[in-house]
Amino acid sequence: MSDEALILFANDAFYNAFAARDFPAMEDIWTKDTEPTCVHPGWPPLVGRNQVMNSWRDILNDDESSPIACTNAQAYRCGEGAYVTCHEHMGRSFLIATNIFLRENGQWKIIHHQAGAALSPNRTTQATSTLQ
Amino acid sequence: MSDEALILFANDAFYNAFAARDFPAMEDIWTKDTEPTCVHPGWPPLVGRNQVMNSWRDILNDDESSPIACTNAQAYRCGEGAYVTCHEHMGRSFLIATNIFLRENGQWKIIHHQAGAALSPNRTTQATSTLQ
Repeated sequence: MSDEALILFANDAFYNAFAARDFPAMEDIWTKDTEPTCVHPGWPPLVGRNQVMNSWRDILNDDESSPIACTNAQAYRCGEGAYVTCHEHMGRSFLIATNIFLRENGQWKIIHHQAGAALSPNRTTQATSTLQ
Repeated sequence: MSDEALILFANDAFYNAFAARDFPAMEDIWTKDTEPTCVHPGWPPLVGRNQVMNSWRDILNDDESSPIACTNAQAYRCGEGAYVTCHEHMGRSFLIATNIFLRENGQWKIIHHQAGAALSPNRTTQATSTLQ
């Protein structure tokens, strides 16, 4: 499996944990070797594993949150690390995310996530179709 | 100067170019060795130097855009790379950004920028004061 495929696989694991509200899986996909950071929409930056994982516990326990799905994921290398940009669909809302990954013991783990409001990807097809 | 200081210096150079509407300085702070990516608020992801620099030319030429200032910048390492989270103040609006950097010929250059809407940092002081 190529590095790009492994990075996108790790990104899928993050969104699968999010969609399934599977906190142990969410704990597993986040770095344990580095203090991670996370910017949820409208939140201040969270720094360190305790703050970040506590935020995910609260989010995954929120029965009123919408289902989430990830589309348009694209992986890019950044030295030894990597990052992914993707759209997040939550009910009728669209967000766009940057997820930064670093390899730990051969597995790609998230060290940073930022998501913010976006237009529907369908409204931006013209722009994105020329990208690559 | 420590690596952290150099990364924050590069982040400042990005916002100084932005604030001064200095396109040559903006061209200089973005990677030339890697195809960069950029997510402006409400835009689809831009990929590659042409798309990214064309977007900055348009933004810096927009006479109606508000002045910008960066606060609360924090630098984090990611293997050989680094990223910065910071608030952006544009008029009465607040945004939050993730900027990813990689060193090229001894200088830190931006390879990715995402900015999205945020609450006023003053409204999140209680949360951020416990961060580090």
